[in-house]
Amino acid sequence: MRLRNKPGAENKLIEFGQYVVSNPEEWKSKWHERFGKKQPLHVEIGMGKGRFLIEMAKQNPEINYIGIELQTSVIVSALEKQIEEDLPNVQLLQVNAQNLQSYFDKGEVDRIYLTFSDPWPKNRHEKRRLTYKDFLFSYETVLDEQGELHFKTDNQKLFEYSLISFSEKGMILKELYLDLHNSDVEDNIMTEYEEKFSKKGNRIYKTVAYFPNKK
Amino acid sequence: MRLRNKPGAENKLIEFGQYVVSNPEEWKSKWHERFGKKQPLHVEIGMGKGRFLIEMAKQNPEINYIGIELQTSVIVSALEKQIEEDLPNVQLLQVNAQNLQSYFDKGEVDRIYLTFSDPWPKNRHEKRRLTYKDFLFSYETVLDEQGELHFKTDNQKLFEYSLISFSEKGMILKELYLDLHNSDVEDNIMTEYEEKFSKKGNRIYKTVAYFPNKK
Repeated sequence: MRLRNKPGAENKLIEFGQYVVSNPEEWKSKWHERFGKKQPLHVEIGMGKGRFLIEMAKQNPEINYIGIELQTSVIVSALEKQIEEDLPNVQLLQVNAQNLQSYFDKGEVDRIYLTFSDPWPKNRHEKRRLTYKDFLFSYETVLDEQGELHFKTDNQKLFEYSLISFSEKGMILKELYLDLHNSDVEDNIMTEYEEKFSKKGNRIYKTVAYFPNKK
Repeated sequence: MRLRNKPGAENKLIEFGQYVVSNPEEWKSKWHERFGKKQPLHVEIGMGKGRFLIEMAKQNPEINYIGIELQTSVIVSALEKQIEEDLPNVQLLQVNAQNLQSYFDKGEVDRIYLTFSDPWPKNRHEKRRLTYKDFLFSYETVLDEQGELHFKTDNQKLFEYSLISFSEKGMILKELYLDLHNSDVEDNIMTEYEEKFSKKGNRIYKTVAYFPNKK
């Protein structure tokens, strides 16, 4: 994503502290208190501008959603959507996904979403891909026994890489779509990227996977 | 594949007994004797008309190839190619793949090829798909510790099904191509189907997978 400097973005993130968590370590193991409601917790890593997260949260008030995004100029767009919607079941975190276990207790998360993650195509950047084995290890740790990883991308190489990575980790695929928009899935909510790329004619790939050792 | 009755096909299969093995159970654990040469054994299940198998065997004289095909009117086309080529490293078997363990000893096979297998799209025919769990179990049994399953198809639904099935069996993907003909793989040998379907614009899917418990 091309990053544009957004004037005032940093101040906005601080100003709306009720939506943007400044001290996520302190909420570890008690996120339901932050939300004020004990219900399943779904986390989107690299949520970008937050369209998917906000739409999911609107449709599913019985689920708490946390959106993680590191880039100031991007997370502020998600914040703007949340300011407008004021959803009680949405919290935003500006943190690095590598430290996931600092923010979530073992088994605290019920579902992780990866949507149109940065493909980091160069081999030397493999470790930055959100489906690299180290990330999978931390997903496994924070996910509940019944927890699932929902992964969607239009990047063929990233999807190939990820399915190999999942298999090496012993993950089991529960669902797999090699052309999501021409499948029989009906309740797909599109991200900003997804709409743009599928209009271009790109295929959208999706899988739902879990860690069998947890079940 | 549409089956045309080929007059004289059955007689031909009997007539060329040096190429078509009539008593495969008896060669179990000693296929190298049948070939007259101890070298790696690769088996194609559902080889169809045999173009892929014969071409592979021509290019790789240091490997023994067995092609399995149940349909008389189809295997006879592979036989005709072999009559013309007279390759010392090719043997054909007209048997049901369900009984693989009757014909091969544990670990006797070094590689299994599935190329453009019948997709059996109806749910009630799931058990006939060559990537159904029962087949995977028998592949695991007959494959050597370093053995690999090479699977290629243009059928998206079958490929999705198979990757899920592999993951449930705990198989590890070594290679994965979601658009083989637009990848950087150079030594791809096409089957009859592959040429036909890729000309139509269909994507070709391929994976190489193995059973980690064997390694």
